Amino acid sequence: MQTLPGFRDFYPEECARRNYILSVWREVARRYGFVEYDGPVLEPIELYQKKSGGELVGQLFDFTDKGGRHAALRPEMTPTLARMVAARERDFKKPLKWFCVPQFFRYEKPQRGRGREFYQFNADIIGEASAAADAELIALVIDVLREFGFSERDFIVRLSSRTAWQKFFADAGGRPEDEYEFFQIVDKAERLPAEKTSAALARLNVPGLTAEAVLAFLRGKQPADLGPVLESLEARGLADFVEIDYAIVRGLAYYTGVVFEVFDRSKNERALAGGGRYDKLLSLMSDGKVDLAALGFGLGDVVLGNLIDDTPEAKARMTAWTSRQRACDVYLIVAKEERRADALALVQQLRLAGLRVDFPLTEAKVGKQFQAAEHLGAELAVVVGEEWPLLKIKTLATRAEEAVPNTGLADWLRNRTTNVPLVQG
Amino acid sequence: MQTLPGFRDFYPEECARRNYILSVWREVARRYGFVEYDGPVLEPIELYQKKSGGELVGQLFDFTDKGGRHAALRPEMTPTLARMVAARERDFKKPLKWFCVPQFFRYEKPQRGRGREFYQFNADIIGEASAAADAELIALVIDVLREFGFSERDFIVRLSSRTAWQKFFADAGGRPEDEYEFFQIVDKAERLPAEKTSAALARLNVPGLTAEAVLAFLRGKQPADLGPVLESLEARGLADFVEIDYAIVRGLAYYTGVVFEVFDRSKNERALAGGGRYDKLLSLMSDGKVDLAALGFGLGDVVLGNLIDDTPEAKARMTAWTSRQRACDVYLIVAKEERRADALALVQQLRLAGLRVDFPLTEAKVGKQFQAAEHLGAELAVVVGEEWPLLKIKTLATRAEEAVPNTGLADWLRNRTTNVPLVQG
Repeated sequence: MQTLPGFRDFYPEECARRNYILSVWREVARRYGFVEYDGPVLEPIELYQKKSGGELVGQLFDFTDKGGRHAALRPEMTPTLARMVAARERDFKKPLKWFCVPQFFRYEKPQRGRGREFYQFNADIIGEASAAADAELIALVIDVLREFGFSERDFIVRLSSRTAWQKFFADAGGRPEDEYEFFQIVDKAERLPAEKTSAALARLNVPGLTAEAVLAFLRGKQPADLGPVLESLEARGLADFVEIDYAIVRGLAYYTGVVFEVFDRSKNERALAGGGRYDKLLSLMSDGKVDLAALGFGLGDVVLGNLIDDTPEAKARMTAWTSRQRACDVYLIVAKEERRADALALVQQLRLAGLRVDFPLTEAKVGKQFQAAEHLGAELAVVVGEEWPLLKIKTLATRAEEAVPNTGLADWLRNRTTNVPLVQG
Repeated sequence: MQTLPGFRDFYPEECARRNYILSVWREVARRYGFVEYDGPVLEPIELYQKKSGGELVGQLFDFTDKGGRHAALRPEMTPTLARMVAARERDFKKPLKWFCVPQFFRYEKPQRGRGREFYQFNADIIGEASAAADAELIALVIDVLREFGFSERDFIVRLSSRTAWQKFFADAGGRPEDEYEFFQIVDKAERLPAEKTSAALARLNVPGLTAEAVLAFLRGKQPADLGPVLESLEARGLADFVEIDYAIVRGLAYYTGVVFEVFDRSKNERALAGGGRYDKLLSLMSDGKVDLAALGFGLGDVVLGNLIDDTPEAKARMTAWTSRQRACDVYLIVAKEERRADALALVQQLRLAGLRVDFPLTEAKVGKQFQAAEHLGAELAVVVGEEWPLLKIKTLATRAEEAVPNTGLADWLRNRTTNVPLVQG
């Protein structure tokens, strides 16, 4: 009996890694003033079909439920977000800065860096058309990656602009309805021989639109509408993390303005994240009822996790975090079985005080109990035995021992553990 | 365009409530030395069919995927846990104390307290047959509910024992293969007239097994094998939270020993949680390869959330937590647009120092900016204006103002905000 192909079990070690990644996403998003939302894991399939493009429809886990509804496991968040915002747009002051950390499902061929489920950090700004919003969003993705321990030597944000390509195409005489096909040609232009690009362009029937002109623009570094974005990033001290790269156009049809992708700087150049503006999508999704500028990005957990493993500074930060997730801080040793009731009362008292405490559920040799304490990662062992109500407390790392009375023990222990009890807020 | 029936959108306010509930579950579980795991949201349907009973198969969201695999959204965690433990049993010291906070999916009629998706706190102890494990698990569910702000006036844990009923049935001459049917009769005995119970019992063909005898045992308070569990809870000072109630048998076929349910004490008596021993399930799931005693419980988020709303102390604790989830602690006001680059650099510096900072993305009147600061819940407003490099800092609650230099500002602000930046560990 196994998982479905492309799905993961999260044993405690993997679960701690996952929780670390989600926790960094959440922490940095909140520093940026983003608030968390979420939506259903299962949605009506029309939500994904309605959007122009529908690129992900072929990869859906979709089915008809017991009530005859055609439903799909969510492959991305943007349609859900657009639906939610459109439904209650008046309840929120603009701009909205919202994030979420959903799990997505896509029926693809499982391979390294890609399963059939993954987590993704999604952050979106809604209701702000200015380049300041693009810069804020790009700064967020940069600072999230820095918080993981990556530097400008590890990753790069490549900035491009659908608006710039639109203008290029229109100036050449292209028709708006051919734009999306033109973007697809641009997307492949660097990977295909110039003749193939020329042939594809010829089908658009725009005199003077040559592969050479496309490649020249693609390789150029004209700031165009990216100028104000770059200035804002420069003011934030983040200029070293970005570069202009017009080879980026992004696959999804709904993008409208600035688009970007984040790559690691190793020779594999794995894509870590991508996003951009989708100023028309809310209107499209709400049949014109709500028309708000919008932009967002997604950063997945799988390639990111591989990159953390490959980057010593990032790996060290993750390990520092996950090792604080040890099973307990204090292990209570019942050295005299007759004192079990007292030991239980003490365990209860320490846990109520917020300490992470474990103890042997049944009678065991004292040596075995110390082994269990070490195995569970406890920092301190509290021995309940002959000396009761005095307790022997052993610091496991140094083997130092002290005798301490059982009153006020929680405070005494809290001052001794280096692992501050979980504070969430 | 709406969600599927029985599915929830989590707008920021609801998302904060959800996160609060999950955070309390996690925090108390970890105080008890439980470690977190997780499994796939989608599993092969055989995982749910294989288990004796299969009670939930009729409520599955199940379908055939694009590769022809019959899959189901998880309706519960125990089969996944049994599979995971059976696969890597040797890698972990016993007893395992594992928890998770998964979302589940069941195709049921949506009603108050029950949707088609819900979160559930699951905690299990694997590899410990003694009553000490039952007591540890029951103490955990009690302390989780207490952490939410509930007292013994708000909820009660009703303890029962399949072993005691088994013995009752065997002593009366019942056949082991009829046990499950007998449990079903016991389950309904309090709700049905005695004649109906008698008629159902007659079909089991056990001379002398009368409805009167069943009801007498059901209403009795014999501690039987519950004695040691009660003693351990008593030693922990938790006796007031539990009572014996043999009317509890639990629906699922796989339970084997102590079983329990948690009810709120209002007259509606909503069931909050339930669990028990399932000592045979791991063996069944692994075709006899792994034979470990096991027990666990589940506590859902929906009835719990309703009860929090209905209980002032619990509501106050939740509100205190969710209000700390405000969008930002510090709002930076750009009073002089020429200083925007300096303001951006300052925002960046404060965020890197871990503070939650927001600011106006575009030029706005100073009064509007202060309104935004209040709206986002900021505690402090930092004004970048004429006085640069001096900053005017306003405590929004008191309207007190101070002039502060821009150097060392992060530390200065950190000492002033009451909202300690998120620490996770």
